[in-house]
Amino acid sequence: MNTDAVVYRTVALAGRPAEPRVGEAMLALAGHLLQRGVRVRAAAGGHSLDFSTLDVELLPEADLALGADLVVAVGGDGTMLHAARMAAPSRVPVLGVNRGRLGFLADVAPGKMLESVDDALAGRCVPENRMLLQATVSGPAAHSPFLALNDVAILKHATGRMLDLNTWVDHAFVNTHAGDGFLVSTSTGSTAYALSCGGPIVHPGVAAIVLVPICPHTLSDRPIVVGADSIIELELAGRHEARAQVVCDGIPVCELETGVRLRVERAAVSATLLHPPGHDYFRILRSKLHWGRSGRSGQPPGD
Amino acid sequence: MNTDAVVYRTVALAGRPAEPRVGEAMLALAGHLLQRGVRVRAAAGGHSLDFSTLDVELLPEADLALGADLVVAVGGDGTMLHAARMAAPSRVPVLGVNRGRLGFLADVAPGKMLESVDDALAGRCVPENRMLLQATVSGPAAHSPFLALNDVAILKHATGRMLDLNTWVDHAFVNTHAGDGFLVSTSTGSTAYALSCGGPIVHPGVAAIVLVPICPHTLSDRPIVVGADSIIELELAGRHEARAQVVCDGIPVCELETGVRLRVERAAVSATLLHPPGHDYFRILRSKLHWGRSGRSGQPPGD
Amino acid sequence: MNTDAVVYRTVALAGRPAEPRVGEAMLALAGHLLQRGVRVRAAAGGHSLDFSTLDVELLPEADLALGADLVVAVGGDGTMLHAARMAAPSRVPVLGVNRGRLGFLADVAPGKMLESVDDALAGRCVPENRMLLQATVSGPAAHSPFLALNDVAILKHATGRMLDLNTWVDHAFVNTHAGDGFLVSTSTGSTAYALSCGGPIVHPGVAAIVLVPICPHTLSDRPIVVGADSIIELELAGRHEARAQVVCDGIPVCELETGVRLRVERAAVSATLLHPPGHDYFRILRSKLHWGRSGRSGQPPGD
Amino acid sequence: MNTDAVVYRTVALAGRPAEPRVGEAMLALAGHLLQRGVRVRAAAGGHSLDFSTLDVELLPEADLALGADLVVAVGGDGTMLHAARMAAPSRVPVLGVNRGRLGFLADVAPGKMLESVDDALAGRCVPENRMLLQATVSGPAAHSPFLALNDVAILKHATGRMLDLNTWVDHAFVNTHAGDGFLVSTSTGSTAYALSCGGPIVHPGVAAIVLVPICPHTLSDRPIVVGADSIIELELAGRHEARAQVVCDGIPVCELETGVRLRVERAAVSATLLHPPGHDYFRILRSKLHWGRSGRSGQPPGD
Repeated sequence: MNTDAVVYRTVALAGRPAEPRVGEAMLALAGHLLQRGVRVRAAAGGHSLDFSTLDVELLPEADLALGADLVVAVGGDGTMLHAARMAAPSRVPVLGVNRGRLGFLADVAPGKMLESVDDALAGRCVPENRMLLQATVSGPAAHSPFLALNDVAILKHATGRMLDLNTWVDHAFVNTHAGDGFLVSTSTGSTAYALSCGGPIVHPGVAAIVLVPICPHTLSDRPIVVGADSIIELELAGRHEARAQVVCDGIPVCELETGVRLRVERAAVSATLLHPPGHDYFRILRSKLHWGRSGRSGQPPGD
Repeated sequence: MNTDAVVYRTVALAGRPAEPRVGEAMLALAGHLLQRGVRVRAAAGGHSLDFSTLDVELLPEADLALGADLVVAVGGDGTMLHAARMAAPSRVPVLGVNRGRLGFLADVAPGKMLESVDDALAGRCVPENRMLLQATVSGPAAHSPFLALNDVAILKHATGRMLDLNTWVDHAFVNTHAGDGFLVSTSTGSTAYALSCGGPIVHPGVAAIVLVPICPHTLSDRPIVVGADSIIELELAGRHEARAQVVCDGIPVCELETGVRLRVERAAVSATLLHPPGHDYFRILRSKLHWGRSGRSGQPPGD
Repeated sequence: MNTDAVVYRTVALAGRPAEPRVGEAMLALAGHLLQRGVRVRAAAGGHSLDFSTLDVELLPEADLALGADLVVAVGGDGTMLHAARMAAPSRVPVLGVNRGRLGFLADVAPGKMLESVDDALAGRCVPENRMLLQATVSGPAAHSPFLALNDVAILKHATGRMLDLNTWVDHAFVNTHAGDGFLVSTSTGSTAYALSCGGPIVHPGVAAIVLVPICPHTLSDRPIVVGADSIIELELAGRHEARAQVVCDGIPVCELETGVRLRVERAAVSATLLHPPGHDYFRILRSKLHWGRSGRSGQPPGD
Repeated sequence: MNTDAVVYRTVALAGRPAEPRVGEAMLALAGHLLQRGVRVRAAAGGHSLDFSTLDVELLPEADLALGADLVVAVGGDGTMLHAARMAAPSRVPVLGVNRGRLGFLADVAPGKMLESVDDALAGRCVPENRMLLQATVSGPAAHSPFLALNDVAILKHATGRMLDLNTWVDHAFVNTHAGDGFLVSTSTGSTAYALSCGGPIVHPGVAAIVLVPICPHTLSDRPIVVGADSIIELELAGRHEARAQVVCDGIPVCELETGVRLRVERAAVSATLLHPPGHDYFRILRSKLHWGRSGRSGQPPGD
């Protein structure tokens, strides 16, 4: 990577400033960036920070990424998901600063925030492309697709009843999945909700989508890894009067009616994450999953 | 696919003829193929069939595939694994005839054996490439790599003790896995031993290798899907006086000594499976995994 | 068991007669029982069967079990759950006739319905006690406890957010469970929803309650088996603005507000199931869970 | 508990003194106990400590517990398993001092060693009974039963082949389990190897035995909790030429031949563990299983 060629003139700050640690970090970032001669933007609105003493441009959140060179997101992985979906259509890279512990996505520690931002400005960060999913509901209720960096879930809703979901991959019928729901996850999402549902960890370098049944009725109904370019379709099988919610990156976006098909596939846009130099995927896994510390008991004498 | 261009002149029959159903099927196949004007080969040796009334060429098993146009394997998935490893270096496709129930690999039902062979001769079968793994042990005990179509396993051996295995992917340290062992599986192997160890199902079209810890000490030590071109290295961590066996496709091939590194990676050769027309991967999954039949109890009133 | 001493004079029929197979079976049962000189009852109401040609007493469903000697439930396990909860306070045994396949609870096959009812009348059936759980919500919204034969679940609701639940067993703090929810299951429920959530099968003879985290955030947050007389308490940890539903045997009964504690414990009453002679718990397990049929692939050569 | 009535006059020290931290702790314990006027014993033999400056009675290990009032075991859970099996026939309680981190069984921290021993001498420790299993092999090769505090395992051995094991509980056939082996675990063992194999955590107060298939071929072959007084029998199903090892508490004790039945049941003797005052089972679970720390990623915005 030619580090000289990279010039970040406009940086957008994303986060939920109502949280004190986040707000303080965003103010410190704004001051630092302005001092470096960089233009700084943030979202206007109710929970906006008081940037009045600083020359920060306030924009509607929807316009934050457009024309920016970099988004710096401050918060947890949830904030990163939001920032990444927002920045993807404008192809702006996102650097994630965690408030506390290291996150899977927000992998800049708070104490290294300014240093990592300088690394980003100097082009010393490592860009990584992560695919997004788009979810489209067919029929009259159609609307522009919902984006997800982690996962698209169909979840049972309110009735306490199992869902029966018919699924197809590239128009080939897979199964009628009965259970609490069904998850379509990217490799990025594989360490999120999908992991709790029994899915595998998928290295971000693998071009794959993971299909994970949630608490499946049939015990052999196991996670399936399919190609990243697969078209996944889901439909309520309708044997029971069920209600189903479509949830993208943890946010309910609509209900799935009987007779309507949900289509999930790779989005045309992708997210670009910036990692600080020395980024090590497996080190983050070891740290987040407490590998290397003890689990169960029971080594024979001599342990 | 231009079906006219395909000409299979020489067919090798593989299987364990000592098993009566297999032997009978091989004799019927030989007769049918000879009648069609095809040259037929089989392995010579102790458990060889009595082909004396037929014009079948008997060869050492190691030479069976070389120069053949097609291998027809009769038996279970185990026989298919053996035939596929044998045929891969000569790039000869393998058609698998099951003795009983449909297999994941041997997907020609016994009753459709002759019909499917005719389909193969006429070029109506669907060829599918499946990657092989090769396992190499470093150091003075080095030998030519072992091949595996399903998986390479490191298993604890004889002592009842857990293994501690250090693992690397593309020279990046992954973890010290403590447990019964560790499995490196292809997508083909993902529905075999890896599935019993908690691994995901991986569609054969995904270019991936699955790393599956076997009965891991740490509960967050979960299966990892990495790219098909990854180089996987494993080494005994040596905290305990442990013994470890290297097992390829279920066959023990050597012990792994302390200080010696096992390297597993995609082999240069791959296997070509021939599927009967209408082959449907998900239909085989549904059949083998009993999807669509009931599992647990407990739907609320109305079920 | 002294079979002569058992006299069933009044039999209540339970089921959802709107389902044709169930309605026909109930009519046949009523005719058979009346012919045997037994008094027959059924629930009055909208979906009631047309028993007009038969001398069947129609009662409000709430009064169906009181004073009856036996409840015969026709339907799936859901109908059995309903009938068992209804019959437990009056200590009336329940015989379950399945409409189709054998159920875990409704273990009389349709073809053996009349024979098994005669067995029950003659005292040849095997009674089995199954504990019920009762769930009580503290605070002003308190009401009589909800009963459950299978399980009491706290489930995330509508928001797509994880629940954080603090749990106590006999007033000792267990954990803050983060995930989709939490399940308190009897041994009866262990083959129902709990099994889909990763819980163990618990033989009905074991005096135990199973605590099962649902899709837990922490991978080491595993099912815990505690004594049948344990008092389980659960409370929203309240870090997130979450909504939680309390679901008993699959039926939503109330919401769990922040600051309110749900108490789950063994109910004073228990259910009595009648099994046909020769009842074999493990045979039902083998049948329902498809044991003895194949699963994954991959036995080495010779398979 | 009447603490005055408890008098420990003779204390046996158990551990592997070859490990420096263990040896030092044993010497410190011996000095402390002698100063308190207690008689001290240790095992004679090759790896014995040099107790020459102290008035410590050296005995064959087999005689260590007989006539002692207390065994203090220094080491990990493995040392505790060994000490508990040794002390059980003489009904001598065992106090476990860990060398490093807290163990499930050795729950006295090294820094609190002398304090906890004083608590034990003064009767302030909490005794807890834990059942042992005994494993008996039928036929001519019969010998006295093997004892296990954690578990009895049947494991595949050397051949790389799956085992097919027929199992019975109280003479009722359960299943033919195909896989890497089968585990019969106590509640004590439920947090050891059984947990790695997918078994539940079983509170020590529950009278239960857990049957855990190891890497089962059939995905619905799940752990089963049965009563503590169940008689478990296992036999090789013999479809394959398999070899099986019987392993008690992690120590291989014999091979299981085809046609020979292994019987596992509650032993007549049980172990008595002494816990320091304030012992809290769930606190140890939380600590050992890293509950309360993060796992996977992916909380929605606001996390």
